[in-house]
Amino acid sequence: MKTRILEPAANAHHSPLLIKNLLLSGQRYYPEREIVYSDISRYNYLCLNERIARLANVLTDAGISPGDTVAVLDWDSHRYLEAYFAVPMIGAVLHHVNVRLSPEQIIYTMNHAEDDLVLVHDDFLPLIEQVAGSLQTVRGYIQLTDAEAPATGLKVVGEYEALLAAASTDYQFPDFDENSIATTFYTTGTTGNPKGVYFSHRQLVLHTLAMAPALGSMDSVPMLRSDDVYMPMTPMFHVHAWGVPYVATMLGVKQVYPGRYEPNKLVQLYQREGVTFSHGVPTVLQMVLGCEAAKTADLKGWNMLTGGAAPTQALSDEMASRGINFVTAYGMSETCPLLTMVNLDEEARQLPAEQQTGARIKTGIPVPMVDLRIVDLAGNPVAHDGEAVGEIVTRAPWLTQGYFKEPEKSEELWAGGWLHTGDVASIDPNHVVQIKDRIKDVIKTGGEWISTIELENLISKHEAVVEVAVVGIPDERWDERPLAMIVPVEGVELDLAQIQQHLQQFVDQGEIAKWAVPERIVLVEALPKTSVGKIDKKVIRTLV
Amino acid sequence: MKTRILEPAANAHHSPLLIKNLLLSGQRYYPEREIVYSDISRYNYLCLNERIARLANVLTDAGISPGDTVAVLDWDSHRYLEAYFAVPMIGAVLHHVNVRLSPEQIIYTMNHAEDDLVLVHDDFLPLIEQVAGSLQTVRGYIQLTDAEAPATGLKVVGEYEALLAAASTDYQFPDFDENSIATTFYTTGTTGNPKGVYFSHRQLVLHTLAMAPALGSMDSVPMLRSDDVYMPMTPMFHVHAWGVPYVATMLGVKQVYPGRYEPNKLVQLYQREGVTFSHGVPTVLQMVLGCEAAKTADLKGWNMLTGGAAPTQALSDEMASRGINFVTAYGMSETCPLLTMVNLDEEARQLPAEQQTGARIKTGIPVPMVDLRIVDLAGNPVAHDGEAVGEIVTRAPWLTQGYFKEPEKSEELWAGGWLHTGDVASIDPNHVVQIKDRIKDVIKTGGEWISTIELENLISKHEAVVEVAVVGIPDERWDERPLAMIVPVEGVELDLAQIQQHLQQFVDQGEIAKWAVPERIVLVEALPKTSVGKIDKKVIRTLV
Repeated sequence: MKTRILEPAANAHHSPLLIKNLLLSGQRYYPEREIVYSDISRYNYLCLNERIARLANVLTDAGISPGDTVAVLDWDSHRYLEAYFAVPMIGAVLHHVNVRLSPEQIIYTMNHAEDDLVLVHDDFLPLIEQVAGSLQTVRGYIQLTDAEAPATGLKVVGEYEALLAAASTDYQFPDFDENSIATTFYTTGTTGNPKGVYFSHRQLVLHTLAMAPALGSMDSVPMLRSDDVYMPMTPMFHVHAWGVPYVATMLGVKQVYPGRYEPNKLVQLYQREGVTFSHGVPTVLQMVLGCEAAKTADLKGWNMLTGGAAPTQALSDEMASRGINFVTAYGMSETCPLLTMVNLDEEARQLPAEQQTGARIKTGIPVPMVDLRIVDLAGNPVAHDGEAVGEIVTRAPWLTQGYFKEPEKSEELWAGGWLHTGDVASIDPNHVVQIKDRIKDVIKTGGEWISTIELENLISKHEAVVEVAVVGIPDERWDERPLAMIVPVEGVELDLAQIQQHLQQFVDQGEIAKWAVPERIVLVEALPKTSVGKIDKKVIRTLV
Repeated sequence: MKTRILEPAANAHHSPLLIKNLLLSGQRYYPEREIVYSDISRYNYLCLNERIARLANVLTDAGISPGDTVAVLDWDSHRYLEAYFAVPMIGAVLHHVNVRLSPEQIIYTMNHAEDDLVLVHDDFLPLIEQVAGSLQTVRGYIQLTDAEAPATGLKVVGEYEALLAAASTDYQFPDFDENSIATTFYTTGTTGNPKGVYFSHRQLVLHTLAMAPALGSMDSVPMLRSDDVYMPMTPMFHVHAWGVPYVATMLGVKQVYPGRYEPNKLVQLYQREGVTFSHGVPTVLQMVLGCEAAKTADLKGWNMLTGGAAPTQALSDEMASRGINFVTAYGMSETCPLLTMVNLDEEARQLPAEQQTGARIKTGIPVPMVDLRIVDLAGNPVAHDGEAVGEIVTRAPWLTQGYFKEPEKSEELWAGGWLHTGDVASIDPNHVVQIKDRIKDVIKTGGEWISTIELENLISKHEAVVEVAVVGIPDERWDERPLAMIVPVEGVELDLAQIQQHLQQFVDQGEIAKWAVPERIVLVEALPKTSVGKIDKKVIRTLV
């Protein structure tokens, strides 16, 4: 190879990809655009930039050096957004603590990430006070408060606003290696301890640069452009709120941070602030659409990105009937997260709304810069014919390089040089990915695979079913057989025969095989959920 | 510093930024979108990808290895677009030969770039035959033809289409260092030989990723999104046609390549193919708007990016009156090129069209990821108050790292760690850059600076003036004095007194100083132009 690689000398003016560069454009294009925090705070991009510099000084004064780790426990707020920038911009690592984990898991993750300083909102102060004695590396705490900071026995550096007010607005953010780690957070797997993923400045910049055209330029109706108004409905601690706060800030978008998610409040903020773009998992969207305030609100034209799980037909139908412009995206903690997004071309948009939902809830097309394929258990590529299924594996410039301090699990994640998602999918000739199931959730019966998601979708069409989860249970003859855990409509009688009869029509139509119909159902009042609101099949399997 | 830099082991799954990755999304999102070549060829994105693989095989079979250089001499064509990808994707360097240079300059640049293989269109075959004896490194030629390849004494590998037809559609494009050089071309300065600039895979990918939101997401009316139809009116050999072919291909945009620029043909293609986005220097736009076909065509809604020079008020007024949505961008050969672009917010768009032109022809706001400032001669930052002027210096992830094999000029370009553009500008508090002049064109008179551009704009408002260029001429008393070279309207009498009287109104209004009014004019039939259509002040200075 005699490829002309730029020698270090010739590449002397190399410009590293740093998170501080994402801040350049928003304030230049739209200095007066607002960052709103519920009913509590409202300021513009110039102020955002000033506060980020102040926070950098506060962190530095608190003894945080490059390579240190700063943990945040907060609802979605302007302060959290400031930490998204200031912490990595001084060379430190931002640890997004998942506040929905158990106290034991929080202790594990904060010790594992070696947190040095903790920014903690009043609402999580009792939790932190409870676990503080077990935190081995934490040197201090900064209190985030919306009223008056409560007294605490913790070693407090100060209250966030008071510290910022006293800090200089001048901070010369340094250049450093773009591969420096910027953020970390933990993903709860099927078994064992949470696993830490981590992302570098380079990775977050590239994720932002590729997500912007994916949201703004690919589809005939853009989801997010500079003139939009953004409000997350995926928590900021959850995979960087899917990376959107970075995109919104680069584009100079007006941003609305709602604090703790209360459905009525979210709808009120949507109306009051003129929100045009949000994103959330189906369970959150369901809560929002079902709340009192949503009944009378005009939701037409709200651009909504859903992900984390496929929305049910019922939820999709409701979004369509309310005029919400929703599409599905796909990704995971390990992937920063964005991998695919649904794209509706002009032709698809000509169809009546109810005929579009099928396309809108697919897993979507890989976004720019993402290489993605499906492979069989031996790692061989599977045909993109819309029929054959395989595990999704991917390569992209923003995937976690492994699990923090877990070399074996990291090797497994990256087997064969591709990141293994654990999701089983088909890809059709138009490159549209359709997830069928998690590899661990697929039911293997009599040498065939049954998709639990497909079965759940069909069962949920029964009018007496509120929610349903299907899991595989061991079976001597068939290896595994499906079992459906169902939340019935309150006061309605529901039994196995009704469900079997309901499913028979889909067998007759050839949609599912006869052997996919379950012989067992369990009726419950609520399904167990994980900390991010997903149905927890791991728990269900232990219950049945 | 204990910044957690990802160690090579932990960064084992690093994903290099390579031009091949820009090809992933367009074909997935819009496989049927067309690439059109004038009246000669029309195919879709799947075919584009297939032909790029075929071309890679042709180049490899012709003995081209990574690090070799492949030169192209062609009008704007689908074949040139294929070379934009295939040449760098096999690890070779694409040399965009400026076909408007003199034969001596072409010999110089092709020898300096050490070209190995030359792709040459029939129209440039006589030129190449004339210079071939002086080309020291060229090993072979591939003929690009729209009819039947003419016989030639050159050492021909074959005719492009015949070679492609015989080649395999399978090519496994390798991964390599993202800092490998992908493209090179030459910029003609004020004096001396042309200087070679060069760009790596990483730089072109980042330029593309940042240009996509600049064109699609920042403004309230996007210039270029997936559903648009693109036709360049800046030649493909000129700074990657401003980088747009890479953006368009990533987004899956329908692309129309017009061959040689003939104004009537351009307008016909605009109409026939439904073009919605083009870009060009003012002199080309002037020719297009003035042609026969444009008189009857509906140009409303044509998105037009102008650059290379500020459009005159007359051209701006004409574009506004025709309903063309034009904005100005700024950049140069050394900057890949994009640095700034005009952004009209919703407020500005509410104004009547004629009141918008002033904003539309400014230099614009730095696009995402671009750091840019103005400095005085000592390199100190100058205030962004819209009044003070200084030289524009910049940092961004896509700037040439120097001039090829010119260490001294490279050091001068990057003095103080910022790329020096040689342009003098003011920046207003809203971050809008307004170029006043080239440093070398500014007229220094009596200790003050006169902007030749400003003076040209005012003189061009005289109804008898078709075109005007102002240069500084040596003056014993004042150092320099302005001289205006004017092309008068045919058959109209024009003299110095008329021009002075015309300018006096602007002196009275306080727009220019009294000492900016020239004492000398020269009437000519045409102004000398450079190879890319810019007014050549270097030549003018030698004439007066």
